[in-house]
Amino acid sequence: MIQTTFPDRAVMAELLAKMLWEIKAVHFNAAQPYKLASGMASPVYIDCRKLLSFPRIRSTVMDFAASTLLRDAGFEQFDCIAGGETAGIPFAALLADRLGLPMIYVRKQPKGHGRNAQIEGNMPEGSRVLVIEDLTTAGGSMFKFIDAVRAAGGIVDHGIALFFYGIFGEQRFADGKVRLHHIATWRNVLPSPGSRSSSTTRRCRKSSPSSMRRWLGRERMVA
Amino acid sequence: MIQTTFPDRAVMAELLAKMLWEIKAVHFNAAQPYKLASGMASPVYIDCRKLLSFPRIRSTVMDFAASTLLRDAGFEQFDCIAGGETAGIPFAALLADRLGLPMIYVRKQPKGHGRNAQIEGNMPEGSRVLVIEDLTTAGGSMFKFIDAVRAAGGIVDHGIALFFYGIFGEQRFADGKVRLHHIATWRNVLPSPGSRSSSTTRRCRKSSPSSMRRWLGRERMVA
Repeated sequence: MIQTTFPDRAVMAELLAKMLWEIKAVHFNAAQPYKLASGMASPVYIDCRKLLSFPRIRSTVMDFAASTLLRDAGFEQFDCIAGGETAGIPFAALLADRLGLPMIYVRKQPKGHGRNAQIEGNMPEGSRVLVIEDLTTAGGSMFKFIDAVRAAGGIVDHGIALFFYGIFGEQRFADGKVRLHHIATWRNVLPSPGSRSSSTTRRCRKSSPSSMRRWLGRERMVA
Repeated sequence: MIQTTFPDRAVMAELLAKMLWEIKAVHFNAAQPYKLASGMASPVYIDCRKLLSFPRIRSTVMDFAASTLLRDAGFEQFDCIAGGETAGIPFAALLADRLGLPMIYVRKQPKGHGRNAQIEGNMPEGSRVLVIEDLTTAGGSMFKFIDAVRAAGGIVDHGIALFFYGIFGEQRFADGKVRLHHIATWRNVLPSPGSRSSSTTRRCRKSSPSSMRRWLGRERMVA
């Protein structure tokens, strides 16, 4: 069944943030920062993989991703959905199923046995491929997969991250000639200082020292 | 939408074999055998990951997997679906979506950054977990994931492989106290010597020297 509802963008962003809080996927630890895939140390960490373990949330997020792409990229723009090893793979399968499209997945390196492939699945030369990631900070991991798909003959003009840090990385995607779609950023997860006091705001203020706000360059993000 | 059609087992096995031939996922190379994940050298190789790239085939196979489990294991036996890194992950996502169940995935090793998890997603202690693999030869890789889920507090009494070699491994699963469900084996993919001459048989005979039949212990499999 192809996705046909198109919620307002701000509603999708707000609801994804709400879901991430609801399943306790938002982590703060200024004392012992997390090491991100990019190697960066960050006092904040979002575990988007937890979205997979909550069926109603998972289904809603995939509807949001499908409608974001259909509206902002187009209805007939893709021949194939690609997910990168590892977290992009389940979301690629779910999105491909939602859109009735073929799926492939991209290994970090060739497998080393069997047919030693880096692209798993079937991708005809010239396929227009949409690369999906659960989350991207600055596009580092994502471009490893994009480059691998391009090297194997695929065309990648679009990517989607369910969650985009929204702090750095825009230039990387512009230089890499990939339009990045996303559903929410930190701006949606971190309530703005003046916002109504919701349970989210209280939980966030309690657990996120001012260092976290400075790290995220809160002011720059709000501007 | 929960799966509610229950095709005959023999029909599902025959159709999966037919799909694998249709998308050219069955490979023979007696001259240069393939090295399987188990390290074994095999003149035959089935690339079940290609199933992901054909939406109608992918959807049919997941319906077969869902109905196999509901019929043979039960309707309310699982709290969660787990896929192992890497090929099990997309099929776990699709099966979880089909059955409206939470999903987790299991890394080969802890990730080494972020929260350094081996189980990604949310798996409450005591969850009854169904582990899915695209294919298993003798259960080697599959038991790495089963053991990791059990070590993390999950209960694994059932597993499913879309394709099971059906040559060795039964004892492994019996000893490991896991009931393995599957849809097709080599017996379904390799037409029996006397079978009507279909295009499948001709393609198989043309490309599969007698060494392949001996390797698969064709006679023992047919008995």
